[in-house]
Amino acid sequence: MTGQGEPPRPPRRPATVRPLPIAVDTMGGDHAPGEIIEGAVDAVRDHGVRVVLVGQAPRIQRELDRHGFAGKIPIVHADEALDMGEGALASWRKPKSSIAIACHLIKQGRASALVSAGSTAGVVATARLRLKGQQGVMRPAIAVALPTTPRPTILLDAGATVDVKPEGLVQFAALGTAYAQILLGVERPSVGLLTIGSEPGKGNKVTKRAHELLSGGSHGIEFAGNVEGHDLLRGAVNVVVTDGFTGNVALKTMEGTIRTAFAEIRTAMTASAPARVGALLQRRRLLELRERLDPDTYGGGVLLGLNGTVVIAHGASHARAIASACELAHRLAAGRIVERIREQVAATRTSRFGRWTHGERDSQDKADRAPRPHERPAEAPKPAEPAPDAPAPAAERNTERAAERTAERTAEHAAPERTEPPAPT
Amino acid sequence: MTGQGEPPRPPRRPATVRPLPIAVDTMGGDHAPGEIIEGAVDAVRDHGVRVVLVGQAPRIQRELDRHGFAGKIPIVHADEALDMGEGALASWRKPKSSIAIACHLIKQGRASALVSAGSTAGVVATARLRLKGQQGVMRPAIAVALPTTPRPTILLDAGATVDVKPEGLVQFAALGTAYAQILLGVERPSVGLLTIGSEPGKGNKVTKRAHELLSGGSHGIEFAGNVEGHDLLRGAVNVVVTDGFTGNVALKTMEGTIRTAFAEIRTAMTASAPARVGALLQRRRLLELRERLDPDTYGGGVLLGLNGTVVIAHGASHARAIASACELAHRLAAGRIVERIREQVAATRTSRFGRWTHGERDSQDKADRAPRPHERPAEAPKPAEPAPDAPAPAAERNTERAAERTAERTAEHAAPERTEPPAPT
Repeated sequence: MTGQGEPPRPPRRPATVRPLPIAVDTMGGDHAPGEIIEGAVDAVRDHGVRVVLVGQAPRIQRELDRHGFAGKIPIVHADEALDMGEGALASWRKPKSSIAIACHLIKQGRASALVSAGSTAGVVATARLRLKGQQGVMRPAIAVALPTTPRPTILLDAGATVDVKPEGLVQFAALGTAYAQILLGVERPSVGLLTIGSEPGKGNKVTKRAHELLSGGSHGIEFAGNVEGHDLLRGAVNVVVTDGFTGNVALKTMEGTIRTAFAEIRTAMTASAPARVGALLQRRRLLELRERLDPDTYGGGVLLGLNGTVVIAHGASHARAIASACELAHRLAAGRIVERIREQVAATRTSRFGRWTHGERDSQDKADRAPRPHERPAEAPKPAEPAPDAPAPAAERNTERAAERTAERTAEHAAPERTEPPAPT
Repeated sequence: MTGQGEPPRPPRRPATVRPLPIAVDTMGGDHAPGEIIEGAVDAVRDHGVRVVLVGQAPRIQRELDRHGFAGKIPIVHADEALDMGEGALASWRKPKSSIAIACHLIKQGRASALVSAGSTAGVVATARLRLKGQQGVMRPAIAVALPTTPRPTILLDAGATVDVKPEGLVQFAALGTAYAQILLGVERPSVGLLTIGSEPGKGNKVTKRAHELLSGGSHGIEFAGNVEGHDLLRGAVNVVVTDGFTGNVALKTMEGTIRTAFAEIRTAMTASAPARVGALLQRRRLLELRERLDPDTYGGGVLLGLNGTVVIAHGASHARAIASACELAHRLAAGRIVERIREQVAATRTSRFGRWTHGERDSQDKADRAPRPHERPAEAPKPAEPAPDAPAPAAERNTERAAERTAERTAEHAAPERTEPPAPT
């Protein structure tokens, strides 16, 4: 890391500096802070990822001592934590929660992304409030990687935005495309629309209209048509787009079905003496399979569409899952996911006057109007104290702050949508 | 069956006559007509169900000869069949399809219910058009039985109505309650609302409002609160209520996940020589489990909310599944499902002015207004020819026709919903 004493470089274009660290919320998750800190240490040691730990400083110190990493990983103190049961309101009540402070590090240009195993509702609400939606994106989405072979399938939205307009689904396609390019290394990922039949006319009002918009082409999206529930684990497309309500139900249905199937199979496999012998002979393979399909392993997601990348690890995450989440956050930051999304969403906007309808203009209007008083916290959160051991280079800070100011000028995310999706014509 | 020569009895209240037969569509399904007819024969022989076979008479005759049932099961000829790929439009184009004629037998009081393994879209569209929605029911729903233990869980809607209002979900709860009473033999079945969190405030606009309405109580519905995707196979409640879009996605996700899990397990279990030995030792138990969880076995559903019961068997149904479907149709008819639904829906209406809002009144307004020209077929379908071998007693015919006239006066089902669901207040 470049030291504090260096002369500030011109803010225009930062040279190839070392990447910013990943802010890790050590206070969220069923096994916080022990497993979280251990996972972060693993990420530093085994994957070369830079991290900054956010949470109760004394406790973090003790854990780092235990791992022999005292003084080697910066710490930012946070007094409060969101409880696992706390939802959206907590993000207002606790402006100094570990997640809020991690968001603040991103805004200040002192971290590139954040990792939390806290409650999804709390993390999403806090991140939306603190990071704000990135310019041009109507609503954020959570992307998850489904355990298909040979490579994962990305499903979004898994629950960030439950009432979505057709134009919102098109934007989710753009978000998913940008994410898949980095995660899967596919240049033009295929995108499917989750609905209830393969023909274009199948679905509810919102998906039927979204199908029309996506079929219009020239959005920079490789639209592969409709997909159904039974296609999710077939790996038929790279990205599956749906609203946060349907996506969440589908994902949890999949998780529950996998758990039930394995539990039933275990019963069937050990129901008789010969079957138990058989089970012993297959033990290793089945454990591998169980792990690959286990929601605790593949679970968790990435919140896309904000001014910063938020990796939400599964609440039950152990150290290994946290290390993977840190590595993923690092890859996304290195792949400039926020910029990629900006470009991808801009591409979907070029055809606005060609095909898009008043639904699109609606959201523009809202972006233009001033935010209402209740849409912002009464008091802006104060900068986190104390600073991480090594501050980020001034050049990076400046660039990030410029981006932050731009973002604050657009208040799209803070504005709740008032109108219903337009009826299909 | 009573002969044609008997004097007509007073139409008020039919005496305890033998139940009407189940109309079986022999032309729908991947294995039609051979497996369909064999299944119907099994239902007659093994379960004592009365059936009437609808389809190409000469072909049915040949099949009945083959099974030694010539002359023992009545046949109603139908010229046309809906193709498996055909959707809703086919119901207009083919007024003499085997499904349309089976519906007509119900309307004429010559059959109590119908069984078809035809395409779900085609069967639903034809049945809605020919049987019409029963009085008081805003929209029909498909109920499916999920393979939970010790007894199945009923999920509805699995795809009949994709855009549903909160009040429609309350009615689905009533439909599901009536169905569960007969299928599960539970007097007050517990009903869960499928959404994305267990707390009342979780979900999209429609489910949040539906939760409020259902929590109001006094609907004759045992509301057990929200359920999530991973609860579907846990058997936490007797009935799970959702819109047709979400229900269809969840059901197909479950089917696809079960298929994938079993395919992966098979691979894992036979990947090495010892594992293959193990697999042999567990063969029988795993086959049993595979069958219980196999969508081809539990698949299929019941279309509820019309003036007649329609059992939609899985397209891939073999004889055994058809026999089960006939038995189910028989049980539902014997349990007077249509009357039960009427009572249950009426109970949900009693609290109309207490809690329900303009959404409910909306649908009333539509029920009151005259149907528009395009909502009805240009020409009413002609009665099916020829008549079944033994005509139904006049008393039954009269009662059913009176019900039919009542139903035709209300055109709720034919009226497409114009307004969006009301925003939650």
